[in-house]
Amino acid sequence: MATLCRPAVSVPEHVITMEDTLALASSRHADHPQLPLALRLIRNTGVRTRHIVQPIEETLKHPGFADRNKLYESEAKARVPAVVRRALDDADLRAADIDVIIYVSCTGFMMPSLTAWLINKMEFSSDTRQIPIAQLGCAAGGAAINRAHDFCMAYPDANALIVACEFCSLCYQPTDLGIGSLLSNGLFGDGVAAAVVRGKGGTGVALERNGSYLIPKTEDWIAYDVRATGFHFLLDKRVPATMEPLAPALIQLADVHGWDATDLDFYIIHAGGPRILDDLSKYLKVPPEAFRFSRATLTEYGNIASAVVLDALRRLFDEGGAEHRARGLLAGFGPGITAEMALGRWVAADEPLEPALRGSRDAVPQALN
Amino acid sequence: MATLCRPAVSVPEHVITMEDTLALASSRHADHPQLPLALRLIRNTGVRTRHIVQPIEETLKHPGFADRNKLYESEAKARVPAVVRRALDDADLRAADIDVIIYVSCTGFMMPSLTAWLINKMEFSSDTRQIPIAQLGCAAGGAAINRAHDFCMAYPDANALIVACEFCSLCYQPTDLGIGSLLSNGLFGDGVAAAVVRGKGGTGVALERNGSYLIPKTEDWIAYDVRATGFHFLLDKRVPATMEPLAPALIQLADVHGWDATDLDFYIIHAGGPRILDDLSKYLKVPPEAFRFSRATLTEYGNIASAVVLDALRRLFDEGGAEHRARGLLAGFGPGITAEMALGRWVAADEPLEPALRGSRDAVPQALN
Repeated sequence: MATLCRPAVSVPEHVITMEDTLALASSRHADHPQLPLALRLIRNTGVRTRHIVQPIEETLKHPGFADRNKLYESEAKARVPAVVRRALDDADLRAADIDVIIYVSCTGFMMPSLTAWLINKMEFSSDTRQIPIAQLGCAAGGAAINRAHDFCMAYPDANALIVACEFCSLCYQPTDLGIGSLLSNGLFGDGVAAAVVRGKGGTGVALERNGSYLIPKTEDWIAYDVRATGFHFLLDKRVPATMEPLAPALIQLADVHGWDATDLDFYIIHAGGPRILDDLSKYLKVPPEAFRFSRATLTEYGNIASAVVLDALRRLFDEGGAEHRARGLLAGFGPGITAEMALGRWVAADEPLEPALRGSRDAVPQALN
Repeated sequence: MATLCRPAVSVPEHVITMEDTLALASSRHADHPQLPLALRLIRNTGVRTRHIVQPIEETLKHPGFADRNKLYESEAKARVPAVVRRALDDADLRAADIDVIIYVSCTGFMMPSLTAWLINKMEFSSDTRQIPIAQLGCAAGGAAINRAHDFCMAYPDANALIVACEFCSLCYQPTDLGIGSLLSNGLFGDGVAAAVVRGKGGTGVALERNGSYLIPKTEDWIAYDVRATGFHFLLDKRVPATMEPLAPALIQLADVHGWDATDLDFYIIHAGGPRILDDLSKYLKVPPEAFRFSRATLTEYGNIASAVVLDALRRLFDEGGAEHRARGLLAGFGPGITAEMALGRWVAADEPLEPALRGSRDAVPQALN
């Protein structure tokens, strides 16, 4: 069974607080007619600190798309290997044991993907498959987990490495003055996360089922406008309310698996913003405390895009993990509007699955939902 | 067994001939010190015609990255659905039967990927998985086949849709005057291809094994320089000679499978340029005729990036296919330098696999190479 092992996470050394953000918004947009609304929205995020790859003075400049993207590349090369090394160590594997690298990142663009450089730099096998995904945005963390799960279902002895590298601060666009942009400027942060999905063995979340769901006719609600100045993030005001249509998809996936999504043992959810967690609490009828890992990521790091789910899971590990065979739900949300969802049980390497449950329908499901 | 069904292919209506290309290069770069070399290299490609989404006069203008990318999006939306429809029809499936869409394209960038729009537009299920890949360049056609194969190994009843949408003409950069750029200007063409990989049934290539190979320390040989003007294609002069290190990887993959790569029944190879096919003929010791499908794609369409392998396969179908259970090799090559390779047998839906071979090691391999 494919087991998602402890994620390693690293955030950059430059810190910006909520107070800094509010002061900056107030001074830079003093004449903006919707400044009070923007300040209220930023305050409501609950984001206390964010970590960014450059000092804020540099972040606020726009040196052009070429320089921004070069910075993305150099920062990725500087920060990713150590995180990958920790993820491998935590999974008790070497680079040579990895069969596929799934690299997700929507805040810079390289061809070839960083995967080619990583394979050379860290001595992964030349046979390692590369799955670079740039266009699933914040949902890509969940997608990476799910594609790793699929890969290990196809090749039960294989191991997958997931890397999420997001430098949202390098997508700051000083000329974007819509209310969605002002809010985003106060919401997103930078972070790098990596985790191994082991085909056999390992401690963490034994993945049992995954699924995707696209809310019909919402493809322009979260989008990039691609311009000479780079990626311009467009955020529709209807996005915060998307848990209403997405909660039934989560409930249905669990239902097909014979589980009740309102009564699971842990929840690892993409914390795009505070309302996602509040609404999910409401629609899944679970106490807000169930989302404490996601809430902590949002509070301490901001929305670090595809890396959120891995950081939230890291916090579950830091808390000591869950009971053996505890049931959990993981979900990433992003452009599409797409949800990438997974169900799994907490397992410890030294506590094998009860023999009675081996091979049972819900322990090793083969069917699609 | 996952079967790669007949690809549907469409090329745009605007045609540019080798003579047009040579005349344009001569007039636009009359003072270029390496013009004679550029003309010789272009002539050597053997590309007789290419098809592009705009008249050549428009193609040669650069309206800015934003407009280019908008054009990419509108052309993709105008051209992809009909090709997808044909691929579905040829596989005897409806959109609702598809479980995953693998969309590969390196010549424009959209977030969300075109997958979200396609799901809405063509009434795919809201549960359809999306795997958009932008950063594997020309190797992505092979990668898409291989990830579809993996998906069907994980979920044997599933069906995957592959879409390759490449408008290389929208990456023309008039200020790039290196010899690699001048050659590329005469080599690449536009095209859209789609194909279904059916988990069960279907006529085409029953996929048996796949593998990737990255040539060490070559990640800067094929690359994009990302700038305010868009993607600038960088092509190292060592690229045409890469079949020498890649042929052993093809031979080894076949060997692990119990096959002899020098003695297969059909070859569906990414025709990046003529030397790839010439050298592969030399290193695999197979007659040039074995690469007739790839050669025809190159001659008639130019290098249409990730769509080449699908178009070459389409030509095998047009020739009437191969003998039942004939053994073949498919391979895409691209940035990394990465090879994405697959082995499979020709099967017809009405001629089931011999019972004696069902379940044998080479009919349903589960192991990684």
